[in-house]
Amino acid sequence: MKVGILGGGQLGRMLALAGYPLGLRFRFMDPAADAPAGHLAECVGGAYDDLAALDRFAEGLDAVTYEFENVPVAAAKHLAAKLPVYPPPGALDAAQDRLTEKTLFNQLGIGTPPFEAVQTEAELKAAAERIGLPAVFKTRRMGYDGKGQAVLRDAADVEQAWKQLGGTPLILEGFVRFERELSILGVRAQDGATAFYPLAENHHRDGILRLSLAPAPDLTPALQAQAEALSQKVLDRLQYVGVLAIELFQVNGTLLANEMAPRVHNSGHWTIEGAACSQFENHLRAVCGLPLGGTAAMPSAMLNLIGSAPPPEAILAVPGAHFHWYGKDPRPGRKIGHVTLCEQAPGDLAPRLEQLKKRIP
Amino acid sequence: MKVGILGGGQLGRMLALAGYPLGLRFRFMDPAADAPAGHLAECVGGAYDDLAALDRFAEGLDAVTYEFENVPVAAAKHLAAKLPVYPPPGALDAAQDRLTEKTLFNQLGIGTPPFEAVQTEAELKAAAERIGLPAVFKTRRMGYDGKGQAVLRDAADVEQAWKQLGGTPLILEGFVRFERELSILGVRAQDGATAFYPLAENHHRDGILRLSLAPAPDLTPALQAQAEALSQKVLDRLQYVGVLAIELFQVNGTLLANEMAPRVHNSGHWTIEGAACSQFENHLRAVCGLPLGGTAAMPSAMLNLIGSAPPPEAILAVPGAHFHWYGKDPRPGRKIGHVTLCEQAPGDLAPRLEQLKKRIP
Repeated sequence: MKVGILGGGQLGRMLALAGYPLGLRFRFMDPAADAPAGHLAECVGGAYDDLAALDRFAEGLDAVTYEFENVPVAAAKHLAAKLPVYPPPGALDAAQDRLTEKTLFNQLGIGTPPFEAVQTEAELKAAAERIGLPAVFKTRRMGYDGKGQAVLRDAADVEQAWKQLGGTPLILEGFVRFERELSILGVRAQDGATAFYPLAENHHRDGILRLSLAPAPDLTPALQAQAEALSQKVLDRLQYVGVLAIELFQVNGTLLANEMAPRVHNSGHWTIEGAACSQFENHLRAVCGLPLGGTAAMPSAMLNLIGSAPPPEAILAVPGAHFHWYGKDPRPGRKIGHVTLCEQAPGDLAPRLEQLKKRIP
Repeated sequence: MKVGILGGGQLGRMLALAGYPLGLRFRFMDPAADAPAGHLAECVGGAYDDLAALDRFAEGLDAVTYEFENVPVAAAKHLAAKLPVYPPPGALDAAQDRLTEKTLFNQLGIGTPPFEAVQTEAELKAAAERIGLPAVFKTRRMGYDGKGQAVLRDAADVEQAWKQLGGTPLILEGFVRFERELSILGVRAQDGATAFYPLAENHHRDGILRLSLAPAPDLTPALQAQAEALSQKVLDRLQYVGVLAIELFQVNGTLLANEMAPRVHNSGHWTIEGAACSQFENHLRAVCGLPLGGTAAMPSAMLNLIGSAPPPEAILAVPGAHFHWYGKDPRPGRKIGHVTLCEQAPGDLAPRLEQLKKRIP
């Protein structure tokens, strides 16, 4: 089978690396001429809304998926008229707008932080009063890694926040004093079978994921069951096929859904070495109609390399460090690689993680 | 770094899959236009003795390695005059001729089956009398997977064997009644550091590897130490860099060396999932001057797919099966893929292996 992947970044690259052993072949499409996935498969250049480029991309493919959740829904639908596109374009549609996304969660009985749609500065002020401050003001679309957000700490911040973000559809979300951030990665096959990885505990700085620990420390079967149940609801409602990531806040032992990504996810990179079958392979198995692989996991830690990185030899000198370089030019705030550590002997993960952290800027 | 690999078969393919996460880029050279590694990196066509093609291949590379032990030594030396070539061409030279290879083993104090060089039918007859029958008559060069061999069971076979193989440099090897076949995979870094995987137990049929079990069942520390010591001697003598495989016979608890391959090896494919760092990654780490990775292993079984294979879904339905398809057209006797199983719970490997065997022709 030949699989087309919209987006040629590191996620696409890791999908191809997981898919070649399955006998799959790949073609990418990416607006950037030097997309990292282009090192290891053909890559069609072109904007995602360029129908002629999409048609060139689609020729001879057996299925299409994406590694980038802001692929225009129209592009996904254009392709879906010709060949299977998974996850279904409806999932893209649901995930691209924070208002639609959170509304869907609530419709399914999944708790979220309080939120309100905002169109004008007056609405922002009114929403801030109802929801209470602090709160997070966000663009409804196209935000990622903390971009397109402003925190309102008191009423005086409203004007500045409106100046920063006003003029596009917006949402105000109540600021949740969570105990920790978690994510549940679920995968659904074409026949409706599902599998879930253990929850990961995620640590962000400046809105960018830095560290994931999986299974999340002190993970209880009840918390895992709660997360799986909410993921299952979303997967089934969207008639989903592939890996879906849902970011969660843990608040007094309860999970609130923050956002979802209809694709493989940074907080699941540890599964390459830490799980029986990685998120990348499982995504492709689902997209290609193959049976899902196991999600059993060993204790793992994944540390992102952001902006810059030490030379590989410094990282590889940490026992058991698995180095993943994305083939991207270093640039401040850019994810350029990650490192995964898996437990080799009981209790050895934490000290090796400390050793690794010391070597990473 | 950009690494050139002579040979674009499945070993090259798995090297590239292991090397991309390290940030390496690849160029292959292979006489076959449709070499499997060409799916995932550039591939220069051309015969290995075509100096102009070798020069095109070498342009802009940082280092060269090979995945095929019958690369002409002259080609390796031609490249080594321009850029680092690992393993060193001297290792190719030593391994390509069964007589040189076994003589080296004996010089290093490593036991082998009895052997004699044979140039004429009369010499074959005399050697058969000295060594005793049964014995194995082999071409000194270019044999693999049981090709270029004839078994002499009694004196009457001499004439037929000579007709089959005579006219090229030959060797007669005593037939050893071994308890089992094993292999030791060692890796040596540029600074002389070495690491060894646990011995694998190998099962052949019709001269082709079918199954490897690693660590070898009932492996004792003494047997592992014996294997590591003999591998270490060869690695040091050859000033080796990269992975070296030595095939061994276990006879009354002692190891005799049968042959070596100066490259990653089929009996080490289990290391992709079963070891902390795979043979492919460790080979590249050595070639690129990076620190070696861990060789700790979990119980694993690797089954080759030869000639034909069931559809992937039949294999993937076996719990925990890791499927590796090489992108080659099926053909009788051809290695087209392999499947690895790793222990998931104590004692679960054997029953899953039985399940897998039932699905493979």
